[in-house]
Amino acid sequence: MARTKRTFWRYLPILVWGRSYDRAALTSDFVAAVIVTIMLIPQSLAYAMLAGLPPEAGIYASIAPILLYAVFGSSRALAVGPVAVVSLMTAAAIGQVAEAGSMGYAAAALTLALLSGVMLMALGLLRLGFIANFLSHPVIAGFITASGLLIATSQIKHILGVPAGGHTLIEMLGSLAAHLGATHLPTLVIGVAATVFLFWVRKGLKPALVRLGLGPRSADLVAKAGPVAAVAVTTLAVWALGLDARGVAIVGAVPQGLPPLTLPDLSPDLLAKLVLPAALISLIGFVESVSVAQTLAARRRQRIDPDQELIGLGAANIGAAFTGGYPVTGGFARSVVNFDAGAETPAAGAFTAAGLAIAAVALTPLIFYLPTATLAATIIVAVLSLVDFSILRKSWAYSRADFAAVLATIVLTLGLGVEAGVSAGVLISIGLHLYKTSRPHVAEVGLVPGTQHFRNVLRHRVVTSPKVLALRVDESLYFANARFLEDLIQDRVAADCPIEHVVLMCPAINEIDFSALESLEAINERLRGIGIRLHLSEVKGPVMDRLKRSHFLDTLNGRVFLSHYDAWMALTGGQGAMPTAAQASPSG
Amino acid sequence: MARTKRTFWRYLPILVWGRSYDRAALTSDFVAAVIVTIMLIPQSLAYAMLAGLPPEAGIYASIAPILLYAVFGSSRALAVGPVAVVSLMTAAAIGQVAEAGSMGYAAAALTLALLSGVMLMALGLLRLGFIANFLSHPVIAGFITASGLLIATSQIKHILGVPAGGHTLIEMLGSLAAHLGATHLPTLVIGVAATVFLFWVRKGLKPALVRLGLGPRSADLVAKAGPVAAVAVTTLAVWALGLDARGVAIVGAVPQGLPPLTLPDLSPDLLAKLVLPAALISLIGFVESVSVAQTLAARRRQRIDPDQELIGLGAANIGAAFTGGYPVTGGFARSVVNFDAGAETPAAGAFTAAGLAIAAVALTPLIFYLPTATLAATIIVAVLSLVDFSILRKSWAYSRADFAAVLATIVLTLGLGVEAGVSAGVLISIGLHLYKTSRPHVAEVGLVPGTQHFRNVLRHRVVTSPKVLALRVDESLYFANARFLEDLIQDRVAADCPIEHVVLMCPAINEIDFSALESLEAINERLRGIGIRLHLSEVKGPVMDRLKRSHFLDTLNGRVFLSHYDAWMALTGGQGAMPTAAQASPSG
Repeated sequence: MARTKRTFWRYLPILVWGRSYDRAALTSDFVAAVIVTIMLIPQSLAYAMLAGLPPEAGIYASIAPILLYAVFGSSRALAVGPVAVVSLMTAAAIGQVAEAGSMGYAAAALTLALLSGVMLMALGLLRLGFIANFLSHPVIAGFITASGLLIATSQIKHILGVPAGGHTLIEMLGSLAAHLGATHLPTLVIGVAATVFLFWVRKGLKPALVRLGLGPRSADLVAKAGPVAAVAVTTLAVWALGLDARGVAIVGAVPQGLPPLTLPDLSPDLLAKLVLPAALISLIGFVESVSVAQTLAARRRQRIDPDQELIGLGAANIGAAFTGGYPVTGGFARSVVNFDAGAETPAAGAFTAAGLAIAAVALTPLIFYLPTATLAATIIVAVLSLVDFSILRKSWAYSRADFAAVLATIVLTLGLGVEAGVSAGVLISIGLHLYKTSRPHVAEVGLVPGTQHFRNVLRHRVVTSPKVLALRVDESLYFANARFLEDLIQDRVAADCPIEHVVLMCPAINEIDFSALESLEAINERLRGIGIRLHLSEVKGPVMDRLKRSHFLDTLNGRVFLSHYDAWMALTGGQGAMPTAAQASPSG
Repeated sequence: MARTKRTFWRYLPILVWGRSYDRAALTSDFVAAVIVTIMLIPQSLAYAMLAGLPPEAGIYASIAPILLYAVFGSSRALAVGPVAVVSLMTAAAIGQVAEAGSMGYAAAALTLALLSGVMLMALGLLRLGFIANFLSHPVIAGFITASGLLIATSQIKHILGVPAGGHTLIEMLGSLAAHLGATHLPTLVIGVAATVFLFWVRKGLKPALVRLGLGPRSADLVAKAGPVAAVAVTTLAVWALGLDARGVAIVGAVPQGLPPLTLPDLSPDLLAKLVLPAALISLIGFVESVSVAQTLAARRRQRIDPDQELIGLGAANIGAAFTGGYPVTGGFARSVVNFDAGAETPAAGAFTAAGLAIAAVALTPLIFYLPTATLAATIIVAVLSLVDFSILRKSWAYSRADFAAVLATIVLTLGLGVEAGVSAGVLISIGLHLYKTSRPHVAEVGLVPGTQHFRNVLRHRVVTSPKVLALRVDESLYFANARFLEDLIQDRVAADCPIEHVVLMCPAINEIDFSALESLEAINERLRGIGIRLHLSEVKGPVMDRLKRSHFLDTLNGRVFLSHYDAWMALTGGQGAMPTAAQASPSG
């Protein structure tokens, strides 16, 4: 495949699609933008509330970031802006350094966006997108499920109209229970009605519209406007009935105008406190965004470039930091709507940004009476679709190690919060991988009679020789398992006196690192000391090339055989005994 | 091989060798103990000074720990006690929580030993000895070399007789340069004379003794007593010439008596500060000790049990904590001397402990006039033998990744200190391993004409078909490389339109974790969406067993072929074209 040259221009994908932009694409993009804008207005307000920020921050976080992503991003359909999990992580991070609602809180959100943007862009320029791979799929699934539960629980207080708090599931539930008696009835009615309505819109409206003769795609798009209807109806109800005077919490005055130019607080103390949260937010945001972008690109046989995605998301977050926003990423729901609505290029994102800018200038007075309970209902209905405990069942069935990682991530996210959860998930995934590869499968092999094939003595009736110990190692040799192999061979030869030759059969060894080379040298020396020869067979080309760069082959006590059958013939002369299963060693 | 039953008794290796203990073993052990005791007295005093502790702490740290290791340890020849690197790490750890020479300082050393002992024992009981494998060999070699340099540099102030300080190489050199003018001449003369003498003992005495007719082994053992001679001569010189009154620093009054019963400080604040240093000390101490024990055991075709070693070292450290000592481990020099002097069982250690107890009771008044410059000379000569920069050359020749890890470890240890150095070494080793396996070698393969073998299209002249993309992945599939494979396949099929089949050839895949399974499912779905079929070939038995526990095989768009040749015949009917090298794809 042709690779783009590494020039400055490669960092601007807009130059590729911009050249062939035509009227048909313009129409498609414009229609998609109108639909996405209608969907984004209530969502942006709600996610800002989830992050503990004033509602306008959600709108602002959708304008400049979308425009910058349109210039630098490599996905044609990704829609960038505030998303639920990142909003929750923002609240958790900033809650540690400032009081919610204070000036310092909003300023810290800008700093967090800037840090995250700089990190993402740096990773992209250094082409380190592979770092996102350190999060295993089940860990991500567990984290998203646990976050969805945490987010939904955090919104119940707005439905009940009580000032409950807490950051972990137990804290939240305890605080809700303590405040239950103070439930505000009119708020509860609005919140429950909005939640029920939105669930119905999601599950029941589309089939109903299809029955009424609408096409399934149009029905789907109309259903996406459900939250706007909920916002309009509940806002009108509060205004008409004067419910705000009776204690229903409302959004209130939102500044009218384009996003302001803001400067993030760069005090070293604040930066130091936000570095780790920013790194975790970047990691989670990037992983989510890339998987959405990849899924959508695949549907049109397009491709995205993960390193370029880092640059696009980095630019979007830096933009958010200077225009009154907070950390953003590519959202699943909004991107899918954008794609389904027919967006063909990132220009659709630019039109969406324009639509939101118009909303920020003209529509904010209309949402003065919008009850926060409606926004909470929007969030609850959106995030409960993320909650999927089936990952526990699926990973249990497939692999206990993956199950352990996902369970730990869910428990720690719910019990200690999002940062502890995702950090633990990364560490457990890496630890389990190292643990698994540190005790590789090693089979003692023998000759299948009548063939040139060698198989595990425990699984097959094969011919072996008491003089020759033939071991097949089913893993690359590297520092984490080098000592294991030393121990294993030492145990075997210490227990088994007639052995004269040890042959390592290497077809599954894809790499031998320097630690493993030193272990092989130590094994060779120890075996030489007790009069046993060490041989290798079926060493792969690249591994052999590397071994030739060391002195190992010069000091090797035995030989390197091209095939294991050559080794068998040379060392036994074709003579061997047929062992019973009981004679076979359990350590092989 | 027969495995010991998992009962309580398996934790007491003394029951194995104790039963067959006889007079011949007693004699061998006794002789070895006398030699080791003579060697250990100056060494223990010196390492205590290196750790910033009073000299008796070094003696105490050699008594109870040796006895406890004799009961619980699995190595027959390992000698446990203070060692250079762990002493330096102790000084670095405690220096952060207490003033050197204060009461709190010695108490913190006890806490550090207790924490380290509890950690080691817990790891042993949980059979988690594999954790030591997370330190790669080149990282250990780099760390030991850098520590040796740091330790030698830290002792120069005692040779010069100046109060210099600093924890990193640059700080130390800067402080030494600033104090150079205040060099104390009599101290310098003693220090330089002792250093030159000890270097000569190490390099020149043994050949001289051999020329005089002594056997090489005896000559070696006599040479080990060199430090005792240096101690005796310089102590007499200070006493006879009254040099202490002229400003030569001396050891002074050392309490006479058996090790005291001490209680470590268990305040939560102190424990929290010492947890990480204790973990690093445990890790380094265990790795050093196990490699010494393994080397010695191999020479007599014995075996050691790494998990039992953890228990033995844990018991030794807990013993040190309650008897006025500080963190200990199995030392290289003392163990080799013990082994070469003929020690057959851990009883030699018990006799050594008795010898040191006698020294603690009777000999401490004799070292009142011992100059600290002599102890510094002992340390410098001992640790410079650890310094070996050849690891840089060797790892560079073999693998750039290993070289990067060792260079970073050396630079960070010298520049930021031992804790930063070893932490960075662990993280870099793991990071590089993940990086390497996250971009596995994937070869596009074709049929070698006239055979049933398939080889890389870039290295061999092979037959391929434009309809079939056959990829051999030379690495297990897991979370760190799952996305890489997704990207790679998507790039290839997006670039190459005639492809109808993608075949993954899996002989080198030893594991597919849940993340990789989901990636395979995603690849399958995406290929299905654009009308391409995904097939697998040569899947290993255990991998296939696991795949059968998921739904992947039910949803697989193509087939699973036993051999890749079967796949080739089924998908192409044996028809293919011979590509030139230029037609071959550079991504394969």
